[in-house]
Amino acid sequence: MATKSLSLLQVANGDLPGHTVELGRDEPLLLDSGKSLSPFSVAYETHGALNAERTNAVLICHALTGDQYVANPNPLTGKPGWWDLVVGPEKIIDTNRFFVICANILGGCLGSTGPASTNPATGKPWGLDFPVITISDMVRAQMRLLDHLGIEKLFLAIGGSMGGMQVLDLASHYSDRVFAAAPIAAAPRHSAQNIAFHEVGRQAIMADPDWCHGNYLAEGKRPTRGLAVARMEAHITYLSETALHRKFGRRLQGRDALTFGFDADFQVESYLRHQGSTFVDRFDPNSYLYITRAMDYFDLSAEHDGVLANAFAGTDVRFCVMSFSSDWLYPTAESRTIVHALNAVAANVSFIEIETDKGHDAFLLDEPEMHRTLAGFIDGCARQIGLD
Amino acid sequence: MATKSLSLLQVANGDLPGHTVELGRDEPLLLDSGKSLSPFSVAYETHGALNAERTNAVLICHALTGDQYVANPNPLTGKPGWWDLVVGPEKIIDTNRFFVICANILGGCLGSTGPASTNPATGKPWGLDFPVITISDMVRAQMRLLDHLGIEKLFLAIGGSMGGMQVLDLASHYSDRVFAAAPIAAAPRHSAQNIAFHEVGRQAIMADPDWCHGNYLAEGKRPTRGLAVARMEAHITYLSETALHRKFGRRLQGRDALTFGFDADFQVESYLRHQGSTFVDRFDPNSYLYITRAMDYFDLSAEHDGVLANAFAGTDVRFCVMSFSSDWLYPTAESRTIVHALNAVAANVSFIEIETDKGHDAFLLDEPEMHRTLAGFIDGCARQIGLD
Repeated sequence: MATKSLSLLQVANGDLPGHTVELGRDEPLLLDSGKSLSPFSVAYETHGALNAERTNAVLICHALTGDQYVANPNPLTGKPGWWDLVVGPEKIIDTNRFFVICANILGGCLGSTGPASTNPATGKPWGLDFPVITISDMVRAQMRLLDHLGIEKLFLAIGGSMGGMQVLDLASHYSDRVFAAAPIAAAPRHSAQNIAFHEVGRQAIMADPDWCHGNYLAEGKRPTRGLAVARMEAHITYLSETALHRKFGRRLQGRDALTFGFDADFQVESYLRHQGSTFVDRFDPNSYLYITRAMDYFDLSAEHDGVLANAFAGTDVRFCVMSFSSDWLYPTAESRTIVHALNAVAANVSFIEIETDKGHDAFLLDEPEMHRTLAGFIDGCARQIGLD
Repeated sequence: MATKSLSLLQVANGDLPGHTVELGRDEPLLLDSGKSLSPFSVAYETHGALNAERTNAVLICHALTGDQYVANPNPLTGKPGWWDLVVGPEKIIDTNRFFVICANILGGCLGSTGPASTNPATGKPWGLDFPVITISDMVRAQMRLLDHLGIEKLFLAIGGSMGGMQVLDLASHYSDRVFAAAPIAAAPRHSAQNIAFHEVGRQAIMADPDWCHGNYLAEGKRPTRGLAVARMEAHITYLSETALHRKFGRRLQGRDALTFGFDADFQVESYLRHQGSTFVDRFDPNSYLYITRAMDYFDLSAEHDGVLANAFAGTDVRFCVMSFSSDWLYPTAESRTIVHALNAVAANVSFIEIETDKGHDAFLLDEPEMHRTLAGFIDGCARQIGLD
């Protein structure tokens, strides 16, 4: 396994393992905002080999703070890929069988074009001049990558959380380019409560004087305190109350008694502080603003006068929708809304709510029922198109 | 109704309507930390008259950001008292019948001694030299106030949220000084998730450079941005997802379309920003640190080897425990834990979970079932002691 070796600054200088491709120089990427990007970069990793018929491609879409290092060690943290449990040789998404692609999203900070990238018009970091992007824009960029790779149709698009939003968007807008879709712990639109939590995170970043109105890179600063607070808050929403209680309860951190002070007396405080302080080493604060904004803006029914079913009218895509019983960020009701819409257009859909106390982040963890369900769905779909 | 007329600075100068008493000059207030306060001030309001037998006193304990202005207009905000719906002539807590006392808690910032008060040893604001206090310390200070008022035994102690924690502490430690107790939307101890949310709020305040390591008053600054972020985060936890959806959904704020920017596009964002920006005018940032810490430390079973029932052994107090079905900060399970402990010692306890979608803050709102239940409990208890 690789050890931690890269900094965000080195990433910004293009010093990143894996592939990075520049796209859109001839054909700009048109964004929902009406603006466009030309050129733009997409950093991605692949695993396995594309078969001769080009029918075995799997696109994995990552979540808010995820990246393209789905199965390879992350060069910034030295940790295993974020879905190492699921993706690899003879694993559920078997890289001996499938050609797996995972790209850093548009707006991200691990090699794909985002607010920390250089604005070609000025030669300086984009900062807040970067256009506000949407989930659809992220998917547009992924489709351009597929064009570049010569992949007309995906076997499978899969992802959890914001990755699931991208899968839903892709299945809606490019139904002829995907055979099967698995949105996990996702929602067809961002709820008021989730917008509220994101807004608090953004305000925490913007309240940090080192944010410099978005211009921190040019001014040689970084709003690490604000970003850490945003991460700490968000992290609570990724876990369930039960999981926090089981993991930490009211246990004290390396002490026998309360200290009557503001140090991290409780393990849960120490854990959260660690989450905040390590996050700032691997994530760009403006990227956090832009990506949370894209999630807030996501509402797949909006372009269909509020009728979600119309987003999937006539679809041939096979869907596998999964939720987790203790996920309060994207609760099962959100997945049911997706399933009802798919049922209303007689789509091919299976749905399962996984019983677990691990909360939203369960999709990243060792959840045997999720893994069995995915394995069955993938095998069934592969048989349907004659993939060995 | 009074209009907004006072600033926090004027409050610090003692320019506050209602009563303020200095206590503990002869007998210091011994704190759980081992430190003591001498003297200390308690600011309080009263309504109605104490009867000749001194048997009609009701102590109302306020929540984290509450104050003594339970029925009178708040001099900082100009708004009606926070429990104006419940407390007043011919209301549920009838001030024609009862002598109602509500005191600003120890550690608060509306006249009672707290971190913004002057440290008698230095002549400067306490800041972080103020001792870390507990819920028990707050109750100790309230008991001193009762001594001062010549009230040996309360008819009723009542409060919601942290007010309910004080009620539980009071009923446990001073069971001979209270006839009836009504903890509403409370918990016998602070959960890991709630400690986590508090820790994020504290970190937001401490991350603000204007916090000046707690010394902002001496340095002529105020960490308003950090405090606003803390308030915004906490406010989400006071409401239910359903209430947020009903009140705001994904509706836009004064605009017809998304702006593709970081302004408050959504009503819920605008509402939260307002909550943050108005809060900083009426609350002291260090008080927020100290009071949240006191809540984190609260665990009534801790001094009884984890057996909550032993906190109430042999009690004669009549209890009315209430929770709200959509309260996820202090969910019904917490109230059930209290009730089970009381049942285990054969205490006199009634319990009701109120069906509502308003979340934790329901105790402050127009909840007819809560009001009916309280009215019945209070009438029944009053009859038992022959109060007309």
